[in-house]
Amino acid sequence: MRNIALTIRYDGTHYSGWQVQQNANSICAEMNRALLRVTGADCEVKGCSRTDSGVHANAYVLSFKTQSGIRCDRLMLALNTYLPDDIAVFEARDVPLDFHARYSATGKEYVYRYYNARVRDPFLLTTTYRVVLPLDERCMNEAAQLLVGTYDFRSFCSEKNTQPDTTRTVTSCAVTRDGDLVRLTIAADGFLYNMVRIIAGTLQKVGEGKLDPADIPAILAARDRKRAGKTAPARGLFLQRVFYDE
Amino acid sequence: MRNIALTIRYDGTHYSGWQVQQNANSICAEMNRALLRVTGADCEVKGCSRTDSGVHANAYVLSFKTQSGIRCDRLMLALNTYLPDDIAVFEARDVPLDFHARYSATGKEYVYRYYNARVRDPFLLTTTYRVVLPLDERCMNEAAQLLVGTYDFRSFCSEKNTQPDTTRTVTSCAVTRDGDLVRLTIAADGFLYNMVRIIAGTLQKVGEGKLDPADIPAILAARDRKRAGKTAPARGLFLQRVFYDE
Repeated sequence: MRNIALTIRYDGTHYSGWQVQQNANSICAEMNRALLRVTGADCEVKGCSRTDSGVHANAYVLSFKTQSGIRCDRLMLALNTYLPDDIAVFEARDVPLDFHARYSATGKEYVYRYYNARVRDPFLLTTTYRVVLPLDERCMNEAAQLLVGTYDFRSFCSEKNTQPDTTRTVTSCAVTRDGDLVRLTIAADGFLYNMVRIIAGTLQKVGEGKLDPADIPAILAARDRKRAGKTAPARGLFLQRVFYDE
Repeated sequence: MRNIALTIRYDGTHYSGWQVQQNANSICAEMNRALLRVTGADCEVKGCSRTDSGVHANAYVLSFKTQSGIRCDRLMLALNTYLPDDIAVFEARDVPLDFHARYSATGKEYVYRYYNARVRDPFLLTTTYRVVLPLDERCMNEAAQLLVGTYDFRSFCSEKNTQPDTTRTVTSCAVTRDGDLVRLTIAADGFLYNMVRIIAGTLQKVGEGKLDPADIPAILAARDRKRAGKTAPARGLFLQRVFYDE
């Protein structure tokens, strides 16, 4: 028996997210279909996280066990033949049998992309969130720094959350600008439901001058979802990296 | 009577090109529809060039005459409301009555983008042409330099061409690499039918080692379409700039 880890990139626009759902197409269902064709057997796929509908990934990690003897580079090429064009495997490697894409992860990094311009860019419709008011990325970055550390992030968590422990450690959080593109990059040991999108919506308010960076500690302390900004749209969000001890 | 020039960006994936055609949607038809709604009258739109089906534009220029008194900034906002999301106006200005988007142009610049990687990038499917074999961009650039000058470009022109004069002046032509993206940038006083795409297909052969940069002068001299490379796909091509004397 082998355990194989795949790293995939996908455009999440046309998917209901990672997880298999009835009446909706998911990334996991596409992986299952392609793996069945290549290995000849149903594989139990473990994903590194549930991503929301419409969220993208530059480097999503999944693992599965198989008795197939196929070489990793051939597996990758074969999967890319069977997968739809908006999902691509760019790494395949054998990992220890106890490796689990989700439970072995020590942290993750997400990127949220705002397109800050009066006029839309036809090439960025599905991969950015357009904000018309000018964003002050320095203020946003100042606010971002105040989220670094170990806190109860309940204020930045969907009220649909079911996890009892809402404490997470954000290891880095920064906002940078490249022309009309403003990028929020955030890494943590784990993320709560909608956490990055609520942080993105809150930092947007800071960037628009509707909230002061100095307001962040009080929002964190309140542990109340209503105090933070709105949930920014899924289309600006990318799972950027998954960290493992190795 | 006013004459107004608009600069638009569009993702050409879902269009048959600039020109109005029966049974196919075109950029020009969309502009006509939006202008009718905003100005209340049919406008005779002049485009700077016919772009092929699937070709994109970062800065396509068109002009039209109108008796409407609408301010240019309002015109731009109103048009963007009525246009589909994959077309956007980002500049509108009054120009002299004798300005014509096509006949007043002194030159144009195109960019052709190759995505040079073994695995496809789900985010670049419709805006690049993927080439799997490694491209030597230095050789391509060397060959590109040999196209700069005034030549009869008949070898780099579709056999469907109907223009008697196939001499053009290429003012700059260069190939650069940025990671897996290889970019051909070419400016000329005018372009023949499929000229950039045939040059892109020919430089691809040079990049793959199937043709030597030193072969270019003989291909030019042959004035024979069969001597050049294939016509590279439309999806990698962008109209980048139009030049006017002003």
